[in-house]
Amino acid sequence: MNRIPILKLGHLLLVSIQVDMHDRMALALQEDLAERISVTGARGVLIDISGLEFIDSFIGRMLSDIAGIARVLDADTVVVGMRPVVAITLVDLGLTLPGVRTALTVERGMAMLPAPTAVEELDDEEEAEDAGGR
Amino acid sequence: MNRIPILKLGHLLLVSIQVDMHDRMALALQEDLAERISVTGARGVLIDISGLEFIDSFIGRMLSDIAGIARVLDADTVVVGMRPVVAITLVDLGLTLPGVRTALTVERGMAMLPAPTAVEELDDEEEAEDAGGR
Repeated sequence: MNRIPILKLGHLLLVSIQVDMHDRMALALQEDLAERISVTGARGVLIDISGLEFIDSFIGRMLSDIAGIARVLDADTVVVGMRPVVAITLVDLGLTLPGVRTALTVERGMAMLPAPTAVEELDDEEEAEDAGGR
Repeated sequence: MNRIPILKLGHLLLVSIQVDMHDRMALALQEDLAERISVTGARGVLIDISGLEFIDSFIGRMLSDIAGIARVLDADTVVVGMRPVVAITLVDLGLTLPGVRTALTVERGMAMLPAPTAVEELDDEEEAEDAGGR
């Protein structure tokens, strides 16, 4: 597995990181996410890290980089699901995740991200109709 | 990593399977999911398999088992994000995923699952208030 799936949930994108990332995988995720934000016009990105048992400086920088990329593409990023032990390790290591907002759960993260504007909701409805959904 | 994260999205649970599952991991996922359905009263389960490059009979049976377990706990299951090549392999292998419904994307899968009843919506709002959310 070399790519981490990016799920579209309305005007948000959700990424669940479950495996230890190596360099190439992290780069691929950044590229895929930038592409998806651009194509979907997503306004928010949720990154779930509840599957991670530790975070080192590499993962920390990757999260900051993703938040930075999303920001210049006009999307907010919230990291959700951090385990208590991971939070402790982060502080022990002196890592601060600059530019990254966090929330305890996906639902709270969603509440922190911008709601779709009236125009975007209209777009979504049209897409749903085009897709034959609902 | 021995546990696959289960994310709560309103009245639904979302599981993104990204790694090749071995026996113990599949059993753990079944147990965790049954527990979460029971605790949260979720009415639907979305299983994203867009990260999987193949499905064998073991994974096929696991998906059917999960759908069966969810059903007796009064929750519907939809498997979403199947890659085209996986669909071809499934049919080649003669696997039919009995009892499992599928949808192309998470969003279409959500549309197939039951909406929360008025009582459940009330519960959710109370929970959000208790948690200090929104």
